Amino acid sequence: MPTTMEHSLTVSDELLDRWSRLRRSERVAAFKDLPDEEKDNFFLALPSTSQARLLLALPQGERRLYLRLLAPDDAADLIQESPRARRDELLALMDDSTRTETNALLAYREDVAGGLMIPRFARLRPEASIEEAITYLRQQIPHVETIYYAYALDEEQRLLGVVSLKELVAASPEKTVRDVMRTQLYKVEENADQHLVEHLFSKHGIQAIPVVDAEGRMKGIITADDVAYAAREEATEDIQKVGGSEALDGPYLETGMLAMLRKRAGWLVILFLGEMLTATAMSHYEEEIERAVVLALFIPLLISSGGNSGSQATTLIIRAMALGELRIRDWWRVARREILAGVALGALLGTIGFLRIVIWQAVAHTYGPHYLLVGFTVAFSLLGVVTFGTLSGSMLPFILKKCGLDPASASAPFVATLVDVTGLVIYFSIAKLMLTGVLL
Amino acid sequence: MPTTMEHSLTVSDELLDRWSRLRRSERVAAFKDLPDEEKDNFFLALPSTSQARLLLALPQGERRLYLRLLAPDDAADLIQESPRARRDELLALMDDSTRTETNALLAYREDVAGGLMIPRFARLRPEASIEEAITYLRQQIPHVETIYYAYALDEEQRLLGVVSLKELVAASPEKTVRDVMRTQLYKVEENADQHLVEHLFSKHGIQAIPVVDAEGRMKGIITADDVAYAAREEATEDIQKVGGSEALDGPYLETGMLAMLRKRAGWLVILFLGEMLTATAMSHYEEEIERAVVLALFIPLLISSGGNSGSQATTLIIRAMALGELRIRDWWRVARREILAGVALGALLGTIGFLRIVIWQAVAHTYGPHYLLVGFTVAFSLLGVVTFGTLSGSMLPFILKKCGLDPASASAPFVATLVDVTGLVIYFSIAKLMLTGVLL
Repeated sequence: MPTTMEHSLTVSDELLDRWSRLRRSERVAAFKDLPDEEKDNFFLALPSTSQARLLLALPQGERRLYLRLLAPDDAADLIQESPRARRDELLALMDDSTRTETNALLAYREDVAGGLMIPRFARLRPEASIEEAITYLRQQIPHVETIYYAYALDEEQRLLGVVSLKELVAASPEKTVRDVMRTQLYKVEENADQHLVEHLFSKHGIQAIPVVDAEGRMKGIITADDVAYAAREEATEDIQKVGGSEALDGPYLETGMLAMLRKRAGWLVILFLGEMLTATAMSHYEEEIERAVVLALFIPLLISSGGNSGSQATTLIIRAMALGELRIRDWWRVARREILAGVALGALLGTIGFLRIVIWQAVAHTYGPHYLLVGFTVAFSLLGVVTFGTLSGSMLPFILKKCGLDPASASAPFVATLVDVTGLVIYFSIAKLMLTGVLL
Repeated sequence: MPTTMEHSLTVSDELLDRWSRLRRSERVAAFKDLPDEEKDNFFLALPSTSQARLLLALPQGERRLYLRLLAPDDAADLIQESPRARRDELLALMDDSTRTETNALLAYREDVAGGLMIPRFARLRPEASIEEAITYLRQQIPHVETIYYAYALDEEQRLLGVVSLKELVAASPEKTVRDVMRTQLYKVEENADQHLVEHLFSKHGIQAIPVVDAEGRMKGIITADDVAYAAREEATEDIQKVGGSEALDGPYLETGMLAMLRKRAGWLVILFLGEMLTATAMSHYEEEIERAVVLALFIPLLISSGGNSGSQATTLIIRAMALGELRIRDWWRVARREILAGVALGALLGTIGFLRIVIWQAVAHTYGPHYLLVGFTVAFSLLGVVTFGTLSGSMLPFILKKCGLDPASASAPFVATLVDVTGLVIYFSIAKLMLTGVLL
């Protein structure tokens, strides 16, 4: 989130938009063509990925210039978006204090509170008067992210309380910070999960939250816009994973062809290898198909119904988990609901499937003399496959989470593949049961 | 977003969490059991859906009490979450000024700027001195959402400029608001799409944006936390749609069984009806299957590979559209990329498929004397099916958007179903071409 309202006001949205549509090779030249007085603001308005690419393409002298425009959190984002081999070189270009702060931020994982925070926050002594506090805040304006929340710390940098600028402005000047500060406040530990942070913000409409270490010493703040940005990136990754791809690292059009293929081929190949089991399963039923080709006609219908119901269930659960609505301990409650839902939906599709076979038979005599038995086979198989699809689609995210993996990997295609093999087994088992001695 | 930091500070997260896990029928009693002094804050901390349900279950006298705690934007959210038949009754319980403001907000669609805004913003006369401005802002604190941004209006309520509290605090007291206010500022029209608003916020790290009508008169402000909340809801809807379900209206566990089934059954039935075309397509190839049962073995593998590659493509495009990275005019650029990606991925899967057939044959003699021809048939079909799946998955969101529909409806299961029928046609056409005179 490398921009602030003050900076971006002078950069037009159209300019940024036009730039983002340029080929990567044309961008450096386009940047150099900008009027000198616009370059700084334009650079600041770019997303970190683009900043990193642009910076690395500039001559060393200019590189230092633009890098030094960035606050430590933005500098850390830029470093993280740069190739590993170039990171030290970029760090060497920073001034000492920014480098120290940036290095401290780089020590955090990107998806924990420490990785989201900004170390430059407004601080106050608790014994300062309101008037002193406002004066002191005014002096801090150039050095901090926001002065709307100021934090009272003791000598060991331990967080004592928070006071908003609004409260300072509203208080009578002879009071002290300690008189007006709130001591009951939300704070997060530096290693708290990003999801927890998001959850606090969205549930309580907080504007900024302090980050503390295990000893209660304040390390930085996270602001609502940074967490919104992180949540947006997170949602993007989840949606991309749900679709059965690895998450892209940047915007679709800016992701190189090779990088994109790599992100997509991995899962496709894994799914393909899994799906090969269907060919193995099918070869077990070759004889049945040979004897009753009519059975083959409904294979795509059956397995895709299982896949579709599984996709529905898995995405509903994945999102509810990401929003903090569901935890691992809720699995049994979800399982009960989803079995019920699966049976209901399976019965519905089964009925429609049965009617379709009966009606087609009446009209076109497609399915032979035993069409009723075929109809029941398909109907019961649908019931079984949809119930199984729904249940496994809903449980897979829990299993992944329990194993410490990302529940969003239980993508729609993953569940569909899982259900395909089982769907075939269910179908042919029911067929054997219903049709042996008649068609088989 | 019915909470503010000040309110929620006294409501513990665990309390809210415990409450959200209660059955709906137990919630009213649990609310009544709360100590009286906690009830207000607890009510304010609940999401709008829960507020509405709780309120409607309370006796009329209490209902009025709690309803009057809400600011107009939160009241409007609550009304929107209530059954239509009860809305007038709830509106009648409000005090006159809140009712007027709430009605004005209810006139906006939920997904436009007007539906996100809060009408209570801080205003200043441009000719006021800095000192007067700060005093005046202090008086407005109880009546406005934020005093961190104050808006200078002329007599016709037209927006002239904005000044932040930070800037006021930093300015010398003898200046006027006009001297320090910024006149170049982002603003949105009341009917602007929510996506545009989100885009402005996330791209420029804005904290609050003014909403104006067609004549430039200021109607309200949208704050970062409200837009973050809206973006989160939007991402949830998109993920649920991508999974092939209608978006749920509330949290998974709080959605009633019947409501959830209705949301899920609709798409499932539509997809099922579409998928029935596979049975029709298959019946055209009944003879081929009868003559060469080996062909049937690869049907699930083929159609699911098409579905998986289509799911990947469609979700990547849907998300890029939601983030404003792609517009309709980019369709051709995307099509070229995706054809390339489809051919590359299809060739990869085709090669793996071919190898699998050759290796299985060497080991288990599964596929008969013409296994090489069968292998080529499967490989070329995979190339065709994956390319077609990728292309149609990527183009479908563009087509839906062009028709004024939601691109997120191009869900993974929708694309998979679309590709299934075509996949069968591709497979059997290639089989006829390669195997006629040999196996067929």
